Amino acid sequence: MSDVPDLAAVKAYLLDLQDRICAELSAEDGRETFRTDEWTRDPSDPKGMGGGGRTRILAEGAVFEKAGVAFSHVTGTKLPPSATAHRPELAGRPWVAMGVSLVIHPRNPRVPTSHANVRFFSTTDATPTSATPSSPTTGHSSLGLGHSGAAAAPVWWFGGGFDLTPYYGYEADCAHWHRTAYDALAPFGPGYYPRFKTWCDDYFFLKHRNEPRGVGGLFFDDFAELGFSRSFELLRAVGDAYLPAYRPIVARRKTEPTTETERDWQLYRRGRYVEFNLVWDRGTLFGLQSGGRTESILMSLPPLVRWDYARTPAPGSEEARLDTDFLRPRDWLTAR
Amino acid sequence: MSDVPDLAAVKAYLLDLQDRICAELSAEDGRETFRTDEWTRDPSDPKGMGGGGRTRILAEGAVFEKAGVAFSHVTGTKLPPSATAHRPELAGRPWVAMGVSLVIHPRNPRVPTSHANVRFFSTTDATPTSATPSSPTTGHSSLGLGHSGAAAAPVWWFGGGFDLTPYYGYEADCAHWHRTAYDALAPFGPGYYPRFKTWCDDYFFLKHRNEPRGVGGLFFDDFAELGFSRSFELLRAVGDAYLPAYRPIVARRKTEPTTETERDWQLYRRGRYVEFNLVWDRGTLFGLQSGGRTESILMSLPPLVRWDYARTPAPGSEEARLDTDFLRPRDWLTAR
Repeated sequence: MSDVPDLAAVKAYLLDLQDRICAELSAEDGRETFRTDEWTRDPSDPKGMGGGGRTRILAEGAVFEKAGVAFSHVTGTKLPPSATAHRPELAGRPWVAMGVSLVIHPRNPRVPTSHANVRFFSTTDATPTSATPSSPTTGHSSLGLGHSGAAAAPVWWFGGGFDLTPYYGYEADCAHWHRTAYDALAPFGPGYYPRFKTWCDDYFFLKHRNEPRGVGGLFFDDFAELGFSRSFELLRAVGDAYLPAYRPIVARRKTEPTTETERDWQLYRRGRYVEFNLVWDRGTLFGLQSGGRTESILMSLPPLVRWDYARTPAPGSEEARLDTDFLRPRDWLTAR
Repeated sequence: MSDVPDLAAVKAYLLDLQDRICAELSAEDGRETFRTDEWTRDPSDPKGMGGGGRTRILAEGAVFEKAGVAFSHVTGTKLPPSATAHRPELAGRPWVAMGVSLVIHPRNPRVPTSHANVRFFSTTDATPTSATPSSPTTGHSSLGLGHSGAAAAPVWWFGGGFDLTPYYGYEADCAHWHRTAYDALAPFGPGYYPRFKTWCDDYFFLKHRNEPRGVGGLFFDDFAELGFSRSFELLRAVGDAYLPAYRPIVARRKTEPTTETERDWQLYRRGRYVEFNLVWDRGTLFGLQSGGRTESILMSLPPLVRWDYARTPAPGSEEARLDTDFLRPRDWLTAR
């Protein structure tokens, strides 16, 4: 039996994952729910991009100050060279990308910000069977992928992960987050967690600050090594692990007492999130520079942020401990 | 008489300009003054960069929520290729850069944000006469520039300009701003204002929003066409015009009554400033990616910022008028 990419199955999983995440986060918030913004690309787009997405935003909740959970399914007739620096032979091919991406900014400074992403990308030599992309939320891709293994010769991969950005560090939360990540990947072999954990530490790093964005988690890209079915299982294992990794931390910290000083620190630290996403994040930069949908890309930015010149927390303070004890690549599985 | 670059004169001008700007803005604020942060580069810097700077910040003033006015004088032993994309033959040469750069974020949403920059850059074939860079605030460059026209063969240029970013538009303010710019350049010939005005409109543009950053002003770079003495005069004309361009606008608007709604709009619009500086501004990106001093580079970021998903002002509102009537390339000299 051939193991060709099944785009419809990937899409169905992603839409269901978005539904589940939004439902659980709404329940955890208890006051606000997500509003849905469906969008489609102009079919006359000069860059030949089609498709669309379903962006969901919860704003000004009791627990979540801003939560964005976006599904998108975008197609193109010609892959730009900048998107395939590591595989120049793919430039110019038709392509399809779909994924769920989310960033959650809680109100209480003692609840960490979290980010997750699961995505699928495929190119093919096949000529599109139709010039009209399918609806972003229903139906199958029009690119003819997955119909025939022999003719299409698709080059495809998965990518994704999740990472945590605390403002006040709790060893127990970091340990739970990483333990959940570890458990999700354990059925696929012992090497995946350490490999994706290190990849995450390397990726979410602010070189201009010499500082990690947070306490990490998982990151992987260009992943096809297990064949389609098993690689897709791994993607689902990661996507499905996000809620059990994050929700207990939110539930445990959302009622912690907090102060104006802590709020101020949270707003200041959120500046680092902005700096990473706008200066270093390849997905954000590629999206903004290639004509992606700005509002969906920048839904990741925090609702309220401050910058102060040369701010340094008092030595030994809980704020200073964030840097000394948490924003370091650490083995969180053995933390307690 | 030869017309070789006089670095000591440029430096003296820049330090004095910083002094004058800080003194006048402090006076306009009436409550807070600038604190000075002198810094020097580690002489053992692996990238061979030396020098330092004098960063001045006024925070939480009555009129200015955050004002940063920075002088820097930085040297390097080898110009990176990325800094000389348009002049590859200069890569690898020793270089010196000095300038004053400022960004002023007022508190009242009816006072516009302003940015100004004047800078000098030079490379030379000459070997540095000393491995120890001079103090950032006193003394002469150690690179031997300006001592001899024949031996050093320096390649040098000036750059700079100023631009205005209102949150609520006033035709009269924009007209005054551009009239002052026009008058400053008029003695050098009629072509400079239109050329640098258009350059400014082109440079301060957010492609991902299809939106200018503000109402523009002047921008120029790579400027040596009048010879050193006259080009330096032009630089001084621009630097000296900043205060007469900006201070009357601040004086006129700082006591305007304002509302929480207007404050919220200001914080939201400040997000565009962050997006421009971190995504598109070449100076910021080059600085952050090449190991520049992060705190001095990012002093331009606003003190408090908000992002909202897909926010659109009510049609016909003063907020909507900012986009329709002001964030457009316009001939401001004839506005009233």
